[in-house]
Amino acid sequence: MAKSPETEHPVKAAGWASKDTSGILAPFKFSRRATGERDVQFKVLYCGVCHSDLHMVKNEWGFTQYPIVPGHEIVGIVTEVGEKVEKFKVGDKVGVGCLVGSCRECDQCAVDLENYCPKQILTYSMPYFDGTVTYGGYSNIMVADEHFVIRWPENLPLDIGAPLLCAGITTYSPLRYFGLDKPGLKVGVAGLGGLGHLAVKFAKAFGTHVTIISTSINKKKEAIENLGADEFLISRDPEQMQAAAGTLDGIIDTVSATHPLVPLISLLKPNGKLILVGAPEKPIEFHTFPLIQGRKTIAGSGIGGLKETQEMVDFAAKHNILPEVEMINIDYINTAMERLLKSDVKYRFVIDIEKSLKVE
Amino acid sequence: MAKSPETEHPVKAAGWASKDTSGILAPFKFSRRATGERDVQFKVLYCGVCHSDLHMVKNEWGFTQYPIVPGHEIVGIVTEVGEKVEKFKVGDKVGVGCLVGSCRECDQCAVDLENYCPKQILTYSMPYFDGTVTYGGYSNIMVADEHFVIRWPENLPLDIGAPLLCAGITTYSPLRYFGLDKPGLKVGVAGLGGLGHLAVKFAKAFGTHVTIISTSINKKKEAIENLGADEFLISRDPEQMQAAAGTLDGIIDTVSATHPLVPLISLLKPNGKLILVGAPEKPIEFHTFPLIQGRKTIAGSGIGGLKETQEMVDFAAKHNILPEVEMINIDYINTAMERLLKSDVKYRFVIDIEKSLKVE
Repeated sequence: MAKSPETEHPVKAAGWASKDTSGILAPFKFSRRATGERDVQFKVLYCGVCHSDLHMVKNEWGFTQYPIVPGHEIVGIVTEVGEKVEKFKVGDKVGVGCLVGSCRECDQCAVDLENYCPKQILTYSMPYFDGTVTYGGYSNIMVADEHFVIRWPENLPLDIGAPLLCAGITTYSPLRYFGLDKPGLKVGVAGLGGLGHLAVKFAKAFGTHVTIISTSINKKKEAIENLGADEFLISRDPEQMQAAAGTLDGIIDTVSATHPLVPLISLLKPNGKLILVGAPEKPIEFHTFPLIQGRKTIAGSGIGGLKETQEMVDFAAKHNILPEVEMINIDYINTAMERLLKSDVKYRFVIDIEKSLKVE
Repeated sequence: MAKSPETEHPVKAAGWASKDTSGILAPFKFSRRATGERDVQFKVLYCGVCHSDLHMVKNEWGFTQYPIVPGHEIVGIVTEVGEKVEKFKVGDKVGVGCLVGSCRECDQCAVDLENYCPKQILTYSMPYFDGTVTYGGYSNIMVADEHFVIRWPENLPLDIGAPLLCAGITTYSPLRYFGLDKPGLKVGVAGLGGLGHLAVKFAKAFGTHVTIISTSINKKKEAIENLGADEFLISRDPEQMQAAAGTLDGIIDTVSATHPLVPLISLLKPNGKLILVGAPEKPIEFHTFPLIQGRKTIAGSGIGGLKETQEMVDFAAKHNILPEVEMINIDYINTAMERLLKSDVKYRFVIDIEKSLKVE
């Protein structure tokens, strides 16, 4: 039985939560646990708005526990640390991404892939070790085991940097793991939203030649000029797609709507890799022939482990890779969710929690 | 315009061909080209019967050119060599697999992956460089460029060894390329036919722990006792499948009928790989979540390059890896095709060409 945080946890907290599948968010009072010996408590300053938040507040993936306080791109300033905490002290800038727990014992945890631990604990709407349900970053205070807390680089802005903690690692990790981080390789990025625009920036920083594959010509100018992409393909233009067939070493596919894979597979060279990081609700179809004829790969990748997330923010700080964001107040969140549903954002909303979240 | 072999080629040959989509094979007279300066001519002794032959004689893949002489697991004895041939002499044992030509210039050919060359020429039913159509190994004489001819190891039987040239390399190559050739790894083999039984033998020779995944319990005893598999899973038994979830490093999926992928993906560990080598006609569906949650891969693999095919037959000879075959006469071929359609063969038909093919 899940215990109520209110009965177990002494630290008063304020946030915004959804209480049912309408997904409408409203002010919500709850409490956080007292800072344990390996815990870091921090004041939340900013929190990014991920498409997963939208899926989850509406229970579109079927495992939401209401009330849900979403948010897993959380940055802030440490306010208290437990006595055994080694990496952090009061006043440090820190971040928490999608995970706040894992078993720390399995084969995956042993190689710093907590993101593939079968017992991973997501930052919101999952049972924590103490039986309570986790609450995310649309709130004023956060408490997490230091293993799941990221050191924030000094020269990386806290506000616009927040989306690195999910959108950043989700695209950085597969570029690295699948070897798409070598100068001169040709990398495609399908979909140009919160994830896609960071995939472009990381791929460029790795020295690859980047082609955006999008349904919308409207995004072309900015994608070339501001994001630094080298080419822009309209996926609905058969002539363009045919002309580019067999030219890419890999594609990071960030599209979370159901979409045909064969046109993307056709863009790959032999041995090319199509990496799915978006999660359409419905199944995707494909023919095996195009895979077999070129020894091609379709793979999935989900966020990243804590060690790699730290590496990613350090890399972003060093190479000045910053998300493009639209800062909002928390009371704009329901409108922001509606706009997110229509992909009407360049490229990520970030909530200014400190400025706009009222705490009585 | 394709030229008629009869008008261009001086060497009289006899074979069995299908003339229409009935796929019925009957005796057929044709001719082979004179031995060119880099060509090897050989007397065909045995030829394996691949499921592709069945697809092709009925034009199920849509690119058959009639009349079609199938057969791409061809072994025999060299009868003539061109003046620039370096690797072979009259009397040598040789083999020809699925390919008789490629561009020899592209990125894939440059790294010995002629099997992924966009201009590859299949052993039968494709236009050759001289404008004629290629004819396969259900025939008494074969002529091929020496680059596409395999040296046959002395201690490898010609008769039962023939299926290595397609079924063997099709399973050996992905085990190597996808790293499923390390002692101690857990490898699954889905489907236990011509390809599957060789996948089991190669995977065992690499020192892996092999689990067969099959729809039929009937094959279990022989698979464990004769093929040396370690475990046998019935894919239609949810309890067995659940108990084995997350245990395999990779699966070679040889099933050529449309089949659900999610149960196979569920058997994989994080970072596991499902390699498709069968080619269902209809598209396959899958959900992306199971891929993303474990960074899993679905990939295709098609035969292998010539260098690797040579390596594979040498490996088979060294490790005594021999296909399990049922020897037939050529006049049994139509019955054999019917039985093949019902998977009624353990595990590969091989035609005794020398003994049974009548040449007037």
